Amino acid sequence: MLVNHYNWRITWGQCDPAGIVFYPRYFEIFDNATTALFERALGMKKIEFREHYSFVGYPMVDTRAKFVSPCKFGDDVIVETTVSEFRKSSFDILHKLTRDGQLCVECTETRVWVAQHPEDPAKIKATPIPESVLQKFK
Amino acid sequence: MLVNHYNWRITWGQCDPAGIVFYPRYFEIFDNATTALFERALGMKKIEFREHYSFVGYPMVDTRAKFVSPCKFGDDVIVETTVSEFRKSSFDILHKLTRDGQLCVECTETRVWVAQHPEDPAKIKATPIPESVLQKFK
Amino acid sequence: MLVNHYNWRITWGQCDPAGIVFYPRYFEIFDNATTALFERALGMKKIEFREHYSFVGYPMVDTRAKFVSPCKFGDDVIVETTVSEFRKSSFDILHKLTRDGQLCVECTETRVWVAQHPEDPAKIKATPIPESVLQKFK
Amino acid sequence: MLVNHYNWRITWGQCDPAGIVFYPRYFEIFDNATTALFERALGMKKIEFREHYSFVGYPMVDTRAKFVSPCKFGDDVIVETTVSEFRKSSFDILHKLTRDGQLCVECTETRVWVAQHPEDPAKIKATPIPESVLQKFK
Repeated sequence: MLVNHYNWRITWGQCDPAGIVFYPRYFEIFDNATTALFERALGMKKIEFREHYSFVGYPMVDTRAKFVSPCKFGDDVIVETTVSEFRKSSFDILHKLTRDGQLCVECTETRVWVAQHPEDPAKIKATPIPESVLQKFK
Repeated sequence: MLVNHYNWRITWGQCDPAGIVFYPRYFEIFDNATTALFERALGMKKIEFREHYSFVGYPMVDTRAKFVSPCKFGDDVIVETTVSEFRKSSFDILHKLTRDGQLCVECTETRVWVAQHPEDPAKIKATPIPESVLQKFK
Repeated sequence: MLVNHYNWRITWGQCDPAGIVFYPRYFEIFDNATTALFERALGMKKIEFREHYSFVGYPMVDTRAKFVSPCKFGDDVIVETTVSEFRKSSFDILHKLTRDGQLCVECTETRVWVAQHPEDPAKIKATPIPESVLQKFK
Repeated sequence: MLVNHYNWRITWGQCDPAGIVFYPRYFEIFDNATTALFERALGMKKIEFREHYSFVGYPMVDTRAKFVSPCKFGDDVIVETTVSEFRKSSFDILHKLTRDGQLCVECTETRVWVAQHPEDPAKIKATPIPESVLQKFK
């Protein structure tokens, strides 16, 4: 399965008065890392592949993060991201955020592949992930 | 002119490693304070008055903030907000953020009243502010 | 066990191009809700009880959120927060975020009670939660 | 005077329900761009140069942004950053954020160079910018 490495330097504004990353900011980093994985797999930007594959997005239904070691501003971290499982219209993501090879945060995500509802364009509906998308991750 | 007071307790996550508010967070507070002023003047929530007055929003075109005294997490601040001038399709806002009566941040905003473009719904267009809206601020 | 209700109106800036809350923003809301529970239980602000109980904070070690129904800007939500378990120097939090009585997001947290390391003030160390704190939650 | 170019792809989470960047997020980008300029000029990370030059930071005292053209998620933007003026213990920054050569946002900043107060380590004090720092920008 395709693995992507997303590089990030922790910024001043992501850290709290304890001098470490305010934990909700990690989820912003992980969301960007998931997008980076899909952009690499599909060879185009998110704004492009949403149109190309006629879908709306992959909203989160369940996410969990374990914080092993805190990161400080200026830390150069790497997020290793992969799809741990594809199902019919949902999938699981695994992120491992490391600094100098040491695991700092591990995060799992379950997301759903959604398209516009065929009868009500204001609504969304879970939709099978296209086979052509699955192929790109192999 | 109508004046609104928006109360806020500075949160842990809004502060940086120096222990004071990370300045971009103030603009989130000011955006909420502008919405609070309009919600009070118009007597309905933003999501409702956008529909009621058939407009899209009031995007920012120019904002400036002067930081006089830093705020720390736990500080109870008050944002005093008023419209300093209404023009045909734009307006100016003045915010004064104080703590215990002491000015901490002063911010000015210029925003434009925009509606959907009549010929292209994907675009927006500056539109005259309705007289009925102006009346509510007097 | 003490239960706190934290009220929040979803803001424009917390929502994404799909018009719903960008999920990392929920964790900011939950962090504020945890603080609100402690402030109510202990009868003082976080900045005060950190000093009063000579501790540094309660960093997150594990958090999980399940997203049942999306929230849009303008939604008035309530976060019901309680401690589901106190252990010697860590505790679990349960948040239920509802809108009009309907569950939208459920979140669990495991946090550790930490104080300054007795031998190195730049470090932190898990510390037993004071009995006087536990009493306040009953 | 040294000029730095900071590249950024607008993320999903930085955009609002109108599909464009929520304006407070630009200030986060500009703060990162100012740090990037200093990191390039001084040849080390912010966390390092704060120690190297024995100062605490360069808090904002005044910032203004003009929003000329909105950015959407997926837009690849460049922030051109330079110091427009150095004074004894403060300096002005100018940012020009462009997309495909078109100006989208222009931002000015006035920041102060501060160090720990010599008599009270909990306080900060404006301090002359070291000559060795000024040299690096020429």
